[in-house]
Amino acid sequence: MTKKDALFSDSWMSSWMRTINASEAYREAGKKWKDAIVLRFDDGLNADGKKHTGFFLDLENGSCKQLRYAGEADLQSAPYILTAPYHIWEKLIRDNKDPLFMIMSGVIRVEKGSMLTLGLQRNAAKALLSAAAEAVAKPDTPYSAEASQAQDPSKTGLSHRKTEKSDGRSSYSTTSRGLDFESIPMQLFQKAKQLGVWNPADIDFSKDRAQWVTFTDTEKDLIFRLTAMFMGGEEAVTLDLLPLIQTLAREGRIEEELFLTSFLWEEAKHTEFFALFLRDVIGKPFDMEHYHGPAYRRLFHGELETALQRLHKDDSPKAQLFASLTYNMIVEGTLAETGYEAYHRMLTEQDMLPGLREGIGLLKRDESRHIAFGLYLIDRLLRENPELRDAFETEAGRLAGLVIDVVDEIFAPYQTMPFKLEKAWFVDFALNQFKKRMKKLFDA
Amino acid sequence: MTKKDALFSDSWMSSWMRTINASEAYREAGKKWKDAIVLRFDDGLNADGKKHTGFFLDLENGSCKQLRYAGEADLQSAPYILTAPYHIWEKLIRDNKDPLFMIMSGVIRVEKGSMLTLGLQRNAAKALLSAAAEAVAKPDTPYSAEASQAQDPSKTGLSHRKTEKSDGRSSYSTTSRGLDFESIPMQLFQKAKQLGVWNPADIDFSKDRAQWVTFTDTEKDLIFRLTAMFMGGEEAVTLDLLPLIQTLAREGRIEEELFLTSFLWEEAKHTEFFALFLRDVIGKPFDMEHYHGPAYRRLFHGELETALQRLHKDDSPKAQLFASLTYNMIVEGTLAETGYEAYHRMLTEQDMLPGLREGIGLLKRDESRHIAFGLYLIDRLLRENPELRDAFETEAGRLAGLVIDVVDEIFAPYQTMPFKLEKAWFVDFALNQFKKRMKKLFDA
Repeated sequence: MTKKDALFSDSWMSSWMRTINASEAYREAGKKWKDAIVLRFDDGLNADGKKHTGFFLDLENGSCKQLRYAGEADLQSAPYILTAPYHIWEKLIRDNKDPLFMIMSGVIRVEKGSMLTLGLQRNAAKALLSAAAEAVAKPDTPYSAEASQAQDPSKTGLSHRKTEKSDGRSSYSTTSRGLDFESIPMQLFQKAKQLGVWNPADIDFSKDRAQWVTFTDTEKDLIFRLTAMFMGGEEAVTLDLLPLIQTLAREGRIEEELFLTSFLWEEAKHTEFFALFLRDVIGKPFDMEHYHGPAYRRLFHGELETALQRLHKDDSPKAQLFASLTYNMIVEGTLAETGYEAYHRMLTEQDMLPGLREGIGLLKRDESRHIAFGLYLIDRLLRENPELRDAFETEAGRLAGLVIDVVDEIFAPYQTMPFKLEKAWFVDFALNQFKKRMKKLFDA
Repeated sequence: MTKKDALFSDSWMSSWMRTINASEAYREAGKKWKDAIVLRFDDGLNADGKKHTGFFLDLENGSCKQLRYAGEADLQSAPYILTAPYHIWEKLIRDNKDPLFMIMSGVIRVEKGSMLTLGLQRNAAKALLSAAAEAVAKPDTPYSAEASQAQDPSKTGLSHRKTEKSDGRSSYSTTSRGLDFESIPMQLFQKAKQLGVWNPADIDFSKDRAQWVTFTDTEKDLIFRLTAMFMGGEEAVTLDLLPLIQTLAREGRIEEELFLTSFLWEEAKHTEFFALFLRDVIGKPFDMEHYHGPAYRRLFHGELETALQRLHKDDSPKAQLFASLTYNMIVEGTLAETGYEAYHRMLTEQDMLPGLREGIGLLKRDESRHIAFGLYLIDRLLRENPELRDAFETEAGRLAGLVIDVVDEIFAPYQTMPFKLEKAWFVDFALNQFKKRMKKLFDA
């Protein structure tokens, strides 16, 4: 343990470097990182009587070779530059914020370097920041008070289980208070009844079938893979939405339940849509499970199912918040939306598989309502339970990392990506969607 | 306790009468019954060397004044005649079958008398039959073996709880085995996507609004009452379908889940439909809960909710069977279908409320798919668990009785029924629908 120093001071910087190099966690998590990085301060950093650009860290396979104030030259040479205002860097270190969440929500900007690589190195980043926090003298800030408040179960709503309905209903919302037609869920329900009634069975796959036989084996393999991922994903969300509907219905939120019935029905049709594509274009169904890699399984079989099915045992606001975050913001709003956008764009650019393209276009429109509902629900839960915001950010950052792992897994098997699908575009789009959503939630 | 006699013999008949008049249960249950009834044998009854028509029972306020073989003259004078073949009367008494189920499923025919009154007197009927069974010498029949088998929990599947999915999914149906597009649920799903996409918000209520102000207070009261019953009922089924979807989804029955998402969405729209009628025709919502009488509450808040929400704790085949029986056969297939048919017919005959009529017409079409699914599900469960059939019949009879109570409750407040709505028609139609369904299930 090193002596504590004032944050961002020269002596703190030396302590930080020593702490990094003494950190077992960083040695392990950072062993694949071998590039210099600049942490840049938006308006410059005033420290020890001078103005600096920020910090320059030269990292190599689990150790820190240099850590100093950055100069203008470093901005040219360093392959990675992350930029944020002073108070954000301070908050990140003092308050143990999730760096990936801060990057993905746009609070820290990636000026230079691959977002995907940064995402995959998220554990290294966390270990670096822990070392930075360890090196700093604890200030008298409201942060510690905030943190202890977050531990209070009555405030976080942990392991809370509503039982109010266990004795049976005694009335109905429609016959006692009436439906609130002005509410956001009812507005989305009106849209769903107009836009969400397309029938996958009406889509003409005859041109797709004719094109299919012209594809190379690698091209077919990519389409198998994406179909397996989308179809499994749509089945997963059809299964895992049920506990959330059940929870909100039990709380008497009839308007939310009504919208969610359209949501669920649409997911069922999306599942059918890919099954029809499989049957009518690829041929009869076959076992496609091996296209679900470890990262995919962790996100769908692990995180999604766990967060949603958990509601049967724990329907606390926190459990609901994490369920909607995982389902609406991460799986739908970041991974699926990006996947569908990339796929749709690729199909359009290559002018191929018009039936598949048409369905994905319609499906994207449905998904936008689902994500709008998720934003509404998360916003409601955070307003009702403001003490959950920190936990929400940390969880969002953790889950966003898993999305990056899935993207990496899609591209890994191919030396040259068929149909010119680009990994960087994929990651940028995902990042941007996530950022937009967080902005909506937190700027409101 | 009387001495045991051969069934249907003269001495047995005397024993039966003594047993009835010694029965505390009959004195209580039969206290409102004061009519003669003939239990007629289809091909006549050969007993004690003679051929008889059946039995004649003269009942009055909890006691039996006469019990003898019936003659032709009794068929003219008795206000009630129930007819069935010999083996059915025998089975009814020896095997403790539910008389209302036997009547409603058409096995025993009501040749004369009000079905509604018989339904309301079902407890009296049961007490009469218990007395008849008590009076008969126990024969060596396979019935007792059947009855003891029904007690075996391994056969009935009582309190069974599937836990196979508690460790999380490891695969998806779509990506491993593929969807079965030929299955009944998928065929119903295809229909739902074509016929179930009507939008309640598209219905024009302007003529309804103009007509509304011309109604008398009693007429308005009946429409309030029916709206409150239908709207609460649609909300109830929207809420209570969730545990059944969850149960079937957990068992990996993806085709059934897909259809049920359309089912659920349609129930949500039906709920909205009545709320729109309330808002746009009657005026702004008001508390209509007092229109839900005790019988209605017993069926919707009690039976329906209990049978469906129970699946969260017990998803055994028996619990699923009773859930579908209560939901699809009783609430939807008997009460709602009859109510909608009667309402639709009344609106058409009086040429009134064209918007309401249009919506109810569309809604009836949706309900017919739901009932078709219920028949499919019950049939599947009974094939997989044939030992549950007896319990199913008993429960069906019990629940059918509650439907009759609800019908009685609708008509009770009105001296003269507005819009010429007829109780007898109502009961006959309900009986007929129930009978048709049971025939489909058991003749297959």
